[in-house]
Order: sequence, then structure tokens, then C-alpha cells
Amino acid sequence: MEETVSAVDVRLGARSYRVSIGSGLLASLGDFLKDTGLRGKCAVITDSTVGPIYGTVVCESLVRAGFLPVSLQVPAGEQSKSLSSAGELCERMIAAGLDRHAFVVALGGGVVGDLAGFVAAIYQRGVPYVQVPTTIVAQVDSAVGGKTGVNAAHGKNLIGAFHQPRLVLADVETLRTLPAREFNEGCAEIVKHAIIRDRALFDSLAKFDRLDSRALAGLIERNVAIKAAIVSADEHETTGERALLNFGHTVGHGIEAAAGYGRFLHGEAVSLGIVAASLLSMKKAGLSQTEHEAILARLRQFELPTRLASDVSTETILTALRADKKFDAGQVRFILTPRIGEAFVAKDVTLAEIRETVEA
Amino acid sequence: MEETVSAVDVRLGARSYRVSIGSGLLASLGDFLKDTGLRGKCAVITDSTVGPIYGTVVCESLVRAGFLPVSLQVPAGEQSKSLSSAGELCERMIAAGLDRHAFVVALGGGVVGDLAGFVAAIYQRGVPYVQVPTTIVAQVDSAVGGKTGVNAAHGKNLIGAFHQPRLVLADVETLRTLPAREFNEGCAEIVKHAIIRDRALFDSLAKFDRLDSRALAGLIERNVAIKAAIVSADEHETTGERALLNFGHTVGHGIEAAAGYGRFLHGEAVSLGIVAASLLSMKKAGLSQTEHEAILARLRQFELPTRLASDVSTETILTALRADKKFDAGQVRFILTPRIGEAFVAKDVTLAEIRETVEA
Repeated sequence: MEETVSAVDVRLGARSYRVSIGSGLLASLGDFLKDTGLRGKCAVITDSTVGPIYGTVVCESLVRAGFLPVSLQVPAGEQSKSLSSAGELCERMIAAGLDRHAFVVALGGGVVGDLAGFVAAIYQRGVPYVQVPTTIVAQVDSAVGGKTGVNAAHGKNLIGAFHQPRLVLADVETLRTLPAREFNEGCAEIVKHAIIRDRALFDSLAKFDRLDSRALAGLIERNVAIKAAIVSADEHETTGERALLNFGHTVGHGIEAAAGYGRFLHGEAVSLGIVAASLLSMKKAGLSQTEHEAILARLRQFELPTRLASDVSTETILTALRADKKFDAGQVRFILTPRIGEAFVAKDVTLAEIRETVEA
Repeated sequence: MEETVSAVDVRLGARSYRVSIGSGLLASLGDFLKDTGLRGKCAVITDSTVGPIYGTVVCESLVRAGFLPVSLQVPAGEQSKSLSSAGELCERMIAAGLDRHAFVVALGGGVVGDLAGFVAAIYQRGVPYVQVPTTIVAQVDSAVGGKTGVNAAHGKNLIGAFHQPRLVLADVETLRTLPAREFNEGCAEIVKHAIIRDRALFDSLAKFDRLDSRALAGLIERNVAIKAAIVSADEHETTGERALLNFGHTVGHGIEAAAGYGRFLHGEAVSLGIVAASLLSMKKAGLSQTEHEAILARLRQFELPTRLASDVSTETILTALRADKKFDAGQVRFILTPRIGEAFVAKDVTLAEIRETVEA
């Protein structure tokens, strides 16, 4: 397999790092790592879906490069993103003799990346980690930017830490093994990036061919560049820039919580959230009907849902919304788009307006 | 009660903060906090010993200054320093409606400070916190420096984060309510500071009168200044400077783990660890017999143990030592003192030598 590598740098001063993107990179992870100055023991944290497919190639690559990997697997699925899973992983790392000079390799999708990154943030008061994302969501979004965490009983990602990785290695070949539904859910984040930042990307998606590896690598790179630029400008989500990435996520998280984790994939809930945000954008930000319909068409192209099933209660969604981190000091911060390619943080969206939109 | 306040600044660039020390400061906590820019809701995390004594005065002071405190209590004792306690506190904060603009007040001794600081580090990816230490150990040591964390099943403080407080308020009046045994255990850290950094402090301890509030405040200030200088020079324990604070703690932690948490107070185990470090310093660093005996005398003055009970097994201590963070990449980093007032990190101390000393 041809190895072509492109790179996007996330510029954060002393915490800067590189995202390398290409086809067939997993087998070279060890070589990429040697350049980071990391050495010795590491925990390869993966899950029961990804571990059996890519665990061996990753661990062999690490061993060849002189590292001492210990493989730790959690059950696949959102339920592993818990504080107790994080604690168990720490205990297993202690039992394996990993000291504070060890590091963590997160091999998997968003759940594994968030969980393993959080484990790295709290193990021995913080050890380095690298992200090896194997889903679209993880490659274009969650693996880049240093947000790590687990879910609380009543809200996603409410327990966590900002902890930047030392390296992100996105091998687009891993996307080939994704079931269609998971491939498509990842595209919700790509549509989101296009809406908030990149009109040309939005248009190009119409003719996207997932079987073309080179095109896929290019698409991932472009999305990583969008994410990297936003993260570099607002590492800790304090200036408002990074909040733009929450486009579609406010209602999306509410739907995930209301429907029960597991019913919708994250990207599917985000797709519904994007529809809600688009409707609100028509009402509050002057988004045109034509562009709204283009957004719906793009989501449908990836077989993403655009209408909420009637058995998910609006009330439950709104209750979940109120518990969300995005509701700062009682105030709703809602991301709107006035036209595709641009977005801003609106502070005048009311819960009543959100209710109306969700009901519609 | 006269309110005299002295201040020590911990200089860490953007993360700098002030430690205010004096008599009767608890009732003014709200006023001190107003100067930090914090506002709104906060969780006052305390324990079942300290809460009933000082919870009301602290919360009333916060309310008077316009804050909205929620009081959260954990059972007193080391067993509360666990990941599950931290998770429960996070859940209670979510239930109480604290968003990411809220902050945490740690009111209590070392366990509460480490636990509440860690909760602040991981709640909503990090919220600010202030330390209100009520024991000697906490005032001169654990509340200053940003080390937060909980215990793992097989080792103290193996899960945690560096997270600097915004303010530390040390009210020496709270030390008056300490049982003699806890007052004395705190003095182990003071003896440690004196040995590694301050010969004059060591000598002055001989005539220390705990009933003299002004002298007590002066003693706390001097110790905070020692800790602050070391932390400012080496925030994340990377240059070796901060490792000096582990004098007496390597063996001390091993003894705590081996004897079972709860049998010895932390400071009592540290006292035994100081004796071991002092013996090893005679052997490896030229510490004189006279100074070794002066160290023993100073520990005995505070009724601290200087001989290990025969039923604590050397083997168990050494097993615990091997699991300790201080054993970097298999190498023992042991702090030795060549003469009172000075210390250095030795890398040539072997486990066999430690065994010999513990057996002695």
C-alpha cells in the first residue's frame, strides 16, 4: 500500500503537536513516535471492536521501534466512557508497572480517545499520550484539540480535563473497515465543519466518493485543518471561537441523552441537532430557505436522520439541555449560521425557541 | 480576635496566587475571594470533622460577600480520598446546578484539599478552586503547590492532576481545635522543611510554643515560604528541586501502605521515614551522628514515632516502595541530607540499603 503522508500542525506554544494523515500509517506508528521523544513503556488503550482488528499491527510496530506496549481493552460502546472505567484502567496500568514516564496510546474511536486521553490526564498527575483515531468522528474532531473526559450519570463529558496529545496519527485505511452507519455518522461532523467555516468544502461534499483513498485523506486533512485552526485560537474554549464547533451539538447532546445513549450514534444526534440549528438560523440569523435545504440534502446524502422520531419527548430533551455545559450561568449559548461557511455565538436564543424548533 | 495577615506569593506566571496567613481569617473568606475575580456558585467541600466546626462560618462569610455556596461533606479520613468519592462529588455538583463558571472551596485537612482540588481539576474539564486548610500538614504543605489527587487501590496519590488554587487562606486559629496527635503529625512536615532548607528554623523549633498565636502564624508563614519557593522553581516536579520535598516520604509512604492506612497518621509515617532518610544520610551523605540525634530529638519533641513497631513487615514496606511514583523507571530517587538545612536527590541508593535501614 502506498504511504502518502500529509501533516497539519496544531499550534499551541509548548503544547504544539502534529496530526499526520495518510494511508497505511498504523504499521509505522513506532517510527512516528520515536520523533516525539517518548520512550519505554506505554499502555495501548483500545476497545473490543478495534483491538482485535488493529491491536496487533500497532503493538508490533511499537515493539519494533523499541517501545514496551501493554495492551488494555475496554468493552466497545459509550458505557465505557465512565469514571469507573478510567479508574480501572489506572489500576491496570499500576499493576503493569507503568510509572510516570510511561505514556498512553489511544487506539480507537471517540469513546476510546476521550477515555484514554482522560486516563493520561489523571494517571500519576498526567502522562503524555498519542491519539490513533480509527473513525471519522475521531479523526476530524475528537482526537484533535485535547478535550478528554468521561460521562457523568446525568450528562456527557461533564467530567474531564484539557490534555493535549503529543501526536495524532490518522490512518484513513482504518475507515474502510467502518460499517456504513458509522462512516456516515462521522460525516455529520464534516458537514458541521463545512457549515461553520468552509463553503467550498460544503459544495465539494456533493461529489464525494468514499472509495477514493486519496480523496478521503484530503477530506480528513481539510477537516483537521479547520479544527486545528480553531483549537489554536481558543485552546480552553474561553474566547468563543471554539464554541463554534458546538454547532448542532447543543440540541444533539440533548437528543442523545433523551433517547438514551446507544439508540442514536453521536453523529446521528448531531445531524438532528444541525437541522434544529439550521431552522433556528433561518429564524434568528437570516439563513435562507435554499441554504437550509442544501444542509438537509447534504445530511441525507450520508443517510443521516433529519427528522426526530415522535417517541422522543421534547420535555426530556429540554431537561437534558438544561444540564448541559453549554448553558453557562443559566444563559443559552447557541451557535447559528447566517450563511453556509460562517457561524457565530448567539446569546439571545431562548429555551422556548429551542422547544418550538424541536417540536417542529 | 485580632486579625493580622501576612502573605506569601506563589509565583507561577499566569497561575500565580497568594497564600494569606493569620488569626481569625475564616470569617473573612468571602472578602478575600472577591479580590480573585471569582463569583457566583461554589461547592464548599469539607469532611465530617471539619464541616460541623467551620462550615457555617465559611458559608456565612461567602453568602455575605455575594457568593452562592453549596456545602458538600465527605466522611473524615483517608478512605474518602478515592476516585469514587471524587465522582460522587461531581455528581452532586451537577445535581446542584453548578456549571463550569462555578468554583470549589476546599475546607479541611490534606485529604479534603487533595480530593477537592482533584474534583476541581476534573469537573467540567477544570474549574477554579481555593484552599482553606485547617491542619498544619495542609497549611504548610499540601494546600500549596497544586498537587491534587486520590489514592489508587495499591498506592497513594497515583491518580491526580496538577491544578493550582486561586487562593490559599490559612487561618491559624483552626489549628487550636486540632487534637494534640494531629497537631504533632503536622510538625513532621515542618521538621522536614527545616532539614532540607532552613537550619535556623530547625534550631528555633526547640523553643516553639504552640499556644502563642503570633509565633504559630510566623512558623506557618516561614514554612509556606519554603514550599512556595520550591514550587515556583519546579511546578511539575521535573527539575529535581521539588523532589526535595519528598525527604522522608519515600519510606514514609511505604510504611503507611504496609501498616494499612489509618494506623499511622501521615506525619507519623513521615517521621519514621525521616529517621530512615537520616540514617541513610549518615551512611551515604556524611550526615554527622550529632545532627542525626538532633533530628531524632526534634521529632520526639513533637511526640512523633522514631522507631518502627516490630509487627510492620519490612517486605511489605519494600513491595509498597516499588509501586511508588518516586521509583522512576526502576531507579530509586532518594532524598538525602549532608547537613541540616541542605538536601539533594541521590540516585545511587539501592533497595538493599533501604531494606537494611528499615530493618535497623
